[in-house]
Amino acid sequence: MIFLNRAAIENMISLEEVMDSVEDAFLAYENNNFEMPDRIHVNNKENTLLYMPCFTNEIFGTKSLTIFPKNSQIGKPVIDGFMTLNDPNTGEPLAMIDGKTLTELRTGAVGGVGAKHLSERNSSTLGLIGAGVQGFQQILFISKVRPIKKVKIYGSNIEKLKDFSSRLKKKIDIEVVICGSAEEVLEGTDIVITATSSENPVLPNKAGLLKGKTFIGIGSYKPTMREFPKEIYSLLDRIYTDTYFAKEESGDLCYPLSEGLIKEEQIHTIGSFMSNKEKKIDETVFFKSVGMALLDIYVAKTIYEKAVGLNIGQKINI
Amino acid sequence: MIFLNRAAIENMISLEEVMDSVEDAFLAYENNNFEMPDRIHVNNKENTLLYMPCFTNEIFGTKSLTIFPKNSQIGKPVIDGFMTLNDPNTGEPLAMIDGKTLTELRTGAVGGVGAKHLSERNSSTLGLIGAGVQGFQQILFISKVRPIKKVKIYGSNIEKLKDFSSRLKKKIDIEVVICGSAEEVLEGTDIVITATSSENPVLPNKAGLLKGKTFIGIGSYKPTMREFPKEIYSLLDRIYTDTYFAKEESGDLCYPLSEGLIKEEQIHTIGSFMSNKEKKIDETVFFKSVGMALLDIYVAKTIYEKAVGLNIGQKINI
Repeated sequence: MIFLNRAAIENMISLEEVMDSVEDAFLAYENNNFEMPDRIHVNNKENTLLYMPCFTNEIFGTKSLTIFPKNSQIGKPVIDGFMTLNDPNTGEPLAMIDGKTLTELRTGAVGGVGAKHLSERNSSTLGLIGAGVQGFQQILFISKVRPIKKVKIYGSNIEKLKDFSSRLKKKIDIEVVICGSAEEVLEGTDIVITATSSENPVLPNKAGLLKGKTFIGIGSYKPTMREFPKEIYSLLDRIYTDTYFAKEESGDLCYPLSEGLIKEEQIHTIGSFMSNKEKKIDETVFFKSVGMALLDIYVAKTIYEKAVGLNIGQKINI
Repeated sequence: MIFLNRAAIENMISLEEVMDSVEDAFLAYENNNFEMPDRIHVNNKENTLLYMPCFTNEIFGTKSLTIFPKNSQIGKPVIDGFMTLNDPNTGEPLAMIDGKTLTELRTGAVGGVGAKHLSERNSSTLGLIGAGVQGFQQILFISKVRPIKKVKIYGSNIEKLKDFSSRLKKKIDIEVVICGSAEEVLEGTDIVITATSSENPVLPNKAGLLKGKTFIGIGSYKPTMREFPKEIYSLLDRIYTDTYFAKEESGDLCYPLSEGLIKEEQIHTIGSFMSNKEKKIDETVFFKSVGMALLDIYVAKTIYEKAVGLNIGQKINI
């Protein structure tokens, strides 16, 4: 068995390769080439253990994460854990992959793939609400698929925004504007990402400000969490998601469905959009991602195969 | 994080230490000093993934196993996987422990602790039905707590029995008798272990042959599995189990309960017996184990702490 930590993964794989794997996963989702049991939550006090198994014909595995919200107060990652990959014929473990890095990469890649298929080709200004780990990745990935020159960021903590900005500018050549409000973020942006843990809308409830942009919603993975205001739904013909479960998992879909603001038939997967030959992009676009184990297993498989080919990774004598 | 494989574990820990940890777990079970969510099964074709989380005040962790029944046909272990131990305050992984070795040791230790508390002190002849990995461990552990001179074994495959016998004699100084039937195993034995995957009783339905012995049932961890015949229940005042869940999980308890052969109030945990000052052993004793994550976490914690103290284990750069 090999162990692949952050350094091994990041030195080996490009963001483009991660996005290719995510696209493969979206197409496999349409073709039903997998078995993905419901993700399993175990709660203990304020903490959660998450087990996300997934089986394909070629490999299977489980992403096992710990989610400790109070870790953010002591500067430790909230999400930790591993993806285990197993031989589909014998169950024997093949690899363990750092779950933090895998989750960051695949979530970033989902945004990147979303922007690639659902935003205007010449989009150059990006907005971001929520200056956390996921927001950072979103910018890196989207910058690979669109000619992004400027990013406008907003969050509740100015010190975090400043740190985010300086880290981002060290990583890629980009202009970063720290905004005083979400409204300011919307001014002149082509693509807007929300990546918060908010339970209430983080964007202004003003159709005029929301119109004509591509929105990518990364937070709101529970019915109690919401990032998007009512008015956005009046602008949408179609809503894109990564999985059909998103309708039950995300407050940004449960809420407008229960309020009658959208109809279920307006919701389509990005995989179905990608499979469709006619790819007309609507004026205002909303892509809501909740993630799924199928994305993890596809990205993990790519990482594992590359590591084997390059003889990278710590050998574990099991 | 450290990784502890079979060699590291077996070189470091004694069977007595494993039994001490199992006793601690049985007492913790009585005192409710833990949180143990239901074990989680994920089925895929004929295979099963099993996640067994458990939390104590000092540590938590998950035993994640793959169960691939057809592996036995190609000489590979049916059960594989790991126990992950985590810091209870941050969730950070501390150690991974080979799940095969841990499961073997803690299951063996359960039998050993059962024999220690529930068999006559001078028991010297042991019977075993089912010559698999678990049966092997049962003999090693019980030999540590009782002056076992002879073991009588029976199973469906004579070649497996011969191999079992020669491996056992290499490991400990013991007389091994290969029997032609389960009836023959019962003749003159003080303690009888059943460690099969049978769905039907593996012992003869004859009260006269069963009377006066201590039985330890290790198979039958599902309602559809049974190892014990009807007649045994007529001989029992009390039945001992490791957990109260055993009433629902084991066919050896579900069946006699549903048939009215025993009453629920006859079932007691071994932990309650251990806590009780008056320890009268009945003429015929039946201890039925189904295992639980609490046993794993206690044994794993002992292994981990010893490894840290001795600076043993492969360091994994997470």
